[in-house]
Amino acid sequence: MALHRKLLAEGLGTALLLAIVVGSGVMAQRLAGGNAAIALLANTLATVAGLYVLIELFAAASGAHFNPAVSFVAWLRGTLSASEALSYAGAQLTGAVLGVWLAHAMFGLDIVQWSAKVRPGFGACLAEGVATFGLLLVILRAPASRGAPMVAAWIGAGYWFTASTSFANPAAVLGRMLTDTFTGIAPSSAPGFVLAEFIGAAAALAVQRLFEPARRPSSPPDAVPTHV
Amino acid sequence: MALHRKLLAEGLGTALLLAIVVGSGVMAQRLAGGNAAIALLANTLATVAGLYVLIELFAAASGAHFNPAVSFVAWLRGTLSASEALSYAGAQLTGAVLGVWLAHAMFGLDIVQWSAKVRPGFGACLAEGVATFGLLLVILRAPASRGAPMVAAWIGAGYWFTASTSFANPAAVLGRMLTDTFTGIAPSSAPGFVLAEFIGAAAALAVQRLFEPARRPSSPPDAVPTHV
Amino acid sequence: MALHRKLLAEGLGTALLLAIVVGSGVMAQRLAGGNAAIALLANTLATVAGLYVLIELFAAASGAHFNPAVSFVAWLRGTLSASEALSYAGAQLTGAVLGVWLAHAMFGLDIVQWSAKVRPGFGACLAEGVATFGLLLVILRAPASRGAPMVAAWIGAGYWFTASTSFANPAAVLGRMLTDTFTGIAPSSAPGFVLAEFIGAAAALAVQRLFEPARRPSSPPDAVPTHV
Amino acid sequence: MALHRKLLAEGLGTALLLAIVVGSGVMAQRLAGGNAAIALLANTLATVAGLYVLIELFAAASGAHFNPAVSFVAWLRGTLSASEALSYAGAQLTGAVLGVWLAHAMFGLDIVQWSAKVRPGFGACLAEGVATFGLLLVILRAPASRGAPMVAAWIGAGYWFTASTSFANPAAVLGRMLTDTFTGIAPSSAPGFVLAEFIGAAAALAVQRLFEPARRPSSPPDAVPTHV
Repeated sequence: MALHRKLLAEGLGTALLLAIVVGSGVMAQRLAGGNAAIALLANTLATVAGLYVLIELFAAASGAHFNPAVSFVAWLRGTLSASEALSYAGAQLTGAVLGVWLAHAMFGLDIVQWSAKVRPGFGACLAEGVATFGLLLVILRAPASRGAPMVAAWIGAGYWFTASTSFANPAAVLGRMLTDTFTGIAPSSAPGFVLAEFIGAAAALAVQRLFEPARRPSSPPDAVPTHV
Repeated sequence: MALHRKLLAEGLGTALLLAIVVGSGVMAQRLAGGNAAIALLANTLATVAGLYVLIELFAAASGAHFNPAVSFVAWLRGTLSASEALSYAGAQLTGAVLGVWLAHAMFGLDIVQWSAKVRPGFGACLAEGVATFGLLLVILRAPASRGAPMVAAWIGAGYWFTASTSFANPAAVLGRMLTDTFTGIAPSSAPGFVLAEFIGAAAALAVQRLFEPARRPSSPPDAVPTHV
Repeated sequence: MALHRKLLAEGLGTALLLAIVVGSGVMAQRLAGGNAAIALLANTLATVAGLYVLIELFAAASGAHFNPAVSFVAWLRGTLSASEALSYAGAQLTGAVLGVWLAHAMFGLDIVQWSAKVRPGFGACLAEGVATFGLLLVILRAPASRGAPMVAAWIGAGYWFTASTSFANPAAVLGRMLTDTFTGIAPSSAPGFVLAEFIGAAAALAVQRLFEPARRPSSPPDAVPTHV
Repeated sequence: MALHRKLLAEGLGTALLLAIVVGSGVMAQRLAGGNAAIALLANTLATVAGLYVLIELFAAASGAHFNPAVSFVAWLRGTLSASEALSYAGAQLTGAVLGVWLAHAMFGLDIVQWSAKVRPGFGACLAEGVATFGLLLVILRAPASRGAPMVAAWIGAGYWFTASTSFANPAAVLGRMLTDTFTGIAPSSAPGFVLAEFIGAAAALAVQRLFEPARRPSSPPDAVPTHV
């Protein structure tokens, strides 16, 4: 498929993903009567369901990354060139911003906002590393036909078991900086999250290599030795 | 399958769908003790589960549209003739009304009601457009074997991330006008919802065409050029 | 598979099903702090998950009926003989009682109880008819590989959209007469439920025949004409 | 696959499983405002989603036992040697401890803790026996392609229908002894749980044999008679 179609898929998918994450957070907080667990439950279920659908929708078109950390690992593995990976990231970041603004428009909120929700500390960054490590392990190891439910389920678990609620996606961090609602993150907390996400992603690639059969050290990582 | 069997499938499926949507809303509101998030969670889960089952049940018989906006797009694409699409819509609208009345009968409510729940504003109509756009994108792009879970999951996400709770279905709008319970919609709010739904549905078809390989402009949309 | 293995599957499966329904009801009511919607949500999710597993576990052994109304329709269709259907029902009813008692033993309750929870009225019986109608329609129409999730999802929806919470199973009615907890039913309400269930089951068979191709009136329902 | 890769899979999988169970329990209790049912619902959904993913991730590498009772039955059936089963158990127990500590680190809690949550009584031990019996029945009978969702669904049901919330795993018991949070278990309650789990696991193997075709008494359990 031509690159512009892939970028359309990445942009549209990431926009809808952020609209789902942020929009369901707004609705959940409005209705939950102050019980944060009920709000997060609703936010989780909407995210899991929507993410599952979006991956199935766009996997054939672009791989359905919706996430610069995923495209980064695709570049490390050689399945995307550097310029493709950068184009993907551009589409994802643009889509994330537009998706958050769409959520604001649907709920009658000011379109442009900045989050004031500080998510500090070593624990939250460790959590982002663990969440993104697991996400990439899923992407690297899942059978193709089960990638969508497995990614969605992993993120659903991560909303609860990681102290950060599993952003696990630098594009999501950018988008969620731009909303002062339930799912926002203050810009001051963003750099630590993003750094941890890239470290977690790279760690998953390293661990996955431990499971792969040994190769001669001089061969490139994914090459199939033609002389064997 | 003969047309009358298809219309039976559309009518029965839409009736059960509306009975599920409206009935679970009644039960949820009765039990939730005033917490609207808990009520909507229960309403969502019942709708997702029921919609999944109904699509699987009737997909082979009629395509399991249950939705005039879906039949409208089928007509635009040439998979239903105009008269078939109108017959489908008739069966869907009739089923929707009967399904709501069935829910009322099960819960011991007055059979004939009109909703007083006004759902106003640009945001709600935008939300209906987004919800129906996504629904049709799912229907147009989903692999056949995953259509049912994907549609159900999309609607489940939509209950939370769209400000309108994703009717995304003119037959559902009609049925829900006829119930003054949790899931109702005042008739005055209905025209904007329905208009937005048809616009969203058509937009999905337009976007889907961006992903399809180029064709010569003069060929009809779904024709397979026999001379290639 | 020999009949005694089939009956073991039916008895064990029905026992575990009732232990799940009744046990999760006890736990849910204990923890829910008086919010009946939260209790029913937990009871629903446990039932859906458990029912899905049990059907997958025993479908190959016995068909995983766990339900005299299902075995009754199997007899109507000629897939079980009368004596097999009666044996199935005996195993199911025995299993249901033992499963409820197992739940009581796990939760430290008196083993032998009678429910005092009256579930009266035309609406509840209509609801049982609708619930069992849908259950049998699923069983008659579902592709074999999706029967388990579809049955489980239907019952999950039914816990909310039918006014009776979808017993849809005479063996479940018997078992739940024997527990004075969240999921119980007073013996005085049982006959109406059971009658409605058998009527709903038979109605599903009648509706399913409307979808099947016409046959010569004199041929038996499921016979394959050998001379064609 | 080499044994060290299998042990890596067992250790990493069990660590992530315990991080999910314990971490989501911490988050759920923090947010639930004192409603234990809401907390357990969130804990359940995170566990089900995470367990599903982990089994799919590591099934091809090691069988994805994550559970000494499962490896014990694999040894009884002859699919693991005694030394392999002991190695598996070692990796599982080590992983469980590290996973709980990871959860503590993410949530900013003291790393080393002991639970004070006594879970006493015959009912809880009976419940552990039932939960582990069902878990092993699933593992022994599930079609390979459905093992992951079935195991996850069984544990999800068990969180509610068994009075003990279904540990069903001696490695989970060890890990959860080491956390004084929502999902902990006091060391004094552990021996009864573990004993019941092994009894339940062995009972599942015995029941499963009732479903298998008869063999000559002198042949070993899983031998394929080469002269037939």
